[in-house]
Amino acid sequence: MIPRHDSAVLSQALRVAMEAGERVRGTTSPNPPVGAVILDAAGLVAGVGATQPPGGPHAEVMALRDAGDKARGGTAVVTLEPCNHTGRTGPCAQALIDASVAAVYYLHPDPTPQAGGGSATLRRAGVTVGQLAPPEGVDDALEPWLSAVSLGRPHVTLKFAQSLDGFTAAADGSSQWITGERAREHVHRDRAQRDAILIGTATALADNPSLTARYPDGSLRERQPRRVVIGSRDVSRGGASNLVELGFEHYSTPQEALDQLYASGARDILVEGGAGLATSFMELGYVERIQAYLGNVILGEGRGVLTRALSQNLAQAERWQRVAVTELGEDLLVEYRKLKG
Amino acid sequence: MIPRHDSAVLSQALRVAMEAGERVRGTTSPNPPVGAVILDAAGLVAGVGATQPPGGPHAEVMALRDAGDKARGGTAVVTLEPCNHTGRTGPCAQALIDASVAAVYYLHPDPTPQAGGGSATLRRAGVTVGQLAPPEGVDDALEPWLSAVSLGRPHVTLKFAQSLDGFTAAADGSSQWITGERAREHVHRDRAQRDAILIGTATALADNPSLTARYPDGSLRERQPRRVVIGSRDVSRGGASNLVELGFEHYSTPQEALDQLYASGARDILVEGGAGLATSFMELGYVERIQAYLGNVILGEGRGVLTRALSQNLAQAERWQRVAVTELGEDLLVEYRKLKG
Repeated sequence: MIPRHDSAVLSQALRVAMEAGERVRGTTSPNPPVGAVILDAAGLVAGVGATQPPGGPHAEVMALRDAGDKARGGTAVVTLEPCNHTGRTGPCAQALIDASVAAVYYLHPDPTPQAGGGSATLRRAGVTVGQLAPPEGVDDALEPWLSAVSLGRPHVTLKFAQSLDGFTAAADGSSQWITGERAREHVHRDRAQRDAILIGTATALADNPSLTARYPDGSLRERQPRRVVIGSRDVSRGGASNLVELGFEHYSTPQEALDQLYASGARDILVEGGAGLATSFMELGYVERIQAYLGNVILGEGRGVLTRALSQNLAQAERWQRVAVTELGEDLLVEYRKLKG
Repeated sequence: MIPRHDSAVLSQALRVAMEAGERVRGTTSPNPPVGAVILDAAGLVAGVGATQPPGGPHAEVMALRDAGDKARGGTAVVTLEPCNHTGRTGPCAQALIDASVAAVYYLHPDPTPQAGGGSATLRRAGVTVGQLAPPEGVDDALEPWLSAVSLGRPHVTLKFAQSLDGFTAAADGSSQWITGERAREHVHRDRAQRDAILIGTATALADNPSLTARYPDGSLRERQPRRVVIGSRDVSRGGASNLVELGFEHYSTPQEALDQLYASGARDILVEGGAGLATSFMELGYVERIQAYLGNVILGEGRGVLTRALSQNLAQAERWQRVAVTELGEDLLVEYRKLKG
């Protein structure tokens, strides 16, 4: 009994699965934030699930638990090809077969040699397997993870807040506040979804930022990213600046930080500045995404986003692909992705 | 017989009238680009009109001509209070009375002493008169004209195209092209709607820009704005740079330019740069609107939008109100309005 759902049903289920994955972003690394939906034999949503923190069940298992007996003869719609790998949890492909699911559709093939091959296992068991196209206008929670495993280093987002003429601080150095409350709230929500936040030693020593993810009332969010400081300055001395004692990790160079972070499980990281660190990451080609928060002030002079020219000439300058524009009160968040060259 | 149209009918008619006014933007100065709609006694659109170039009929007269006999017992919906003034054309209030229109609704009261008082004239003739609220999300073609007559100088829009980190040119001075084709097309369409385009002498001598409004195929648009160069450098000498001979007007200072332009009928002007002129206009408080075109490139170093700090401190910096975000291919146009203080 193979269900023949039309593409609208599958694409709607995929959107629900993607939302489920989006909700666990920042909690699953080194595993991907996968979402899964189980449709019953009639095509109705019977279960929804997402990847649990490392060691916990994967998305398919969560959705199967949610669906119970209704999974029999039903369809699984998953954002990532079900894994074929017995790690800390059993292989998801086998769990789907055991639940007598009749068909499995997924968005992304699993690129990892350890986990891949789930489709073949499912087909051998007589399950219909298909791949779905990405829906328009939905943020893909798997993008950073897919980029990270393909590059062998964490996916990097460079974030900055600037005046509408490109300054991150006024002439006297004041930067509170380039952007308003809604934008700052967005930053805190975003931090909670990252594996790590990176700053340079100069910024760390000058601003002594807490780099925590907070709620609008100022209280700490449950989920806090790793806090990383990069640079050659000594950060282990001097009263309030003893960052290592405060729980910061310290690496000398961007390369060392990326290697160590990837090896210890980070897949999605945010570079928050200052300009020196941002320039290093840009020059090294280590930035996949840019988040430019644009405040409603024009300064004329101040601190720039970067400290050096990336290109002397406009014709040779790298171009970026705009992927999102979000209005945040009086401010604007414009997001860019590296153009595939 | 007074028609009792519900507010949805009137607000729909107002949108049509505003669109009609928008279409004649840039062709009516020193008169305002007004739009008018005549509804017949049943509330159906019977005529649409807009202000003709100076000396030609006003919007109400054009709409009445379009409506013919159907205006009798009908309703006029106009973006500006009908004028009461016999200038080059007869007063519009009288034309509406003569056409036996039963009701008149308008968006903005006429602020000028010469033309105001139309409502009182209409009421004395037994016509129902009311004012309408501005509809959401519709660009108001009268905004520059209203600002100009209230300030006694032209309404000024400052336009610049910048990299996403705030540079109008790369480190080597190259600025072709910060933004792409769709953005440049938008600039040319915008120029055709302005009374004048202003640049500084430094930019004029360095770039020798034509400042014409062109179609995408490169041909000149029918309507061309006045071209103005401002500054103390001599622009009347030297081969290709003889700007006055090329049809540019020349003034020494922003103040002189604004005075002369207003006196000679300009109401809506665009300051296109360079950074020195933009800075002078900002410092003098002469900018009502900012148009920031944001390209998809990050440069790190180059020429800034302005040449000096407008404020040393962020807390004291002037804030702007974002009024529109327009996606233009790979670029973004973000528009701001001066915050009423």
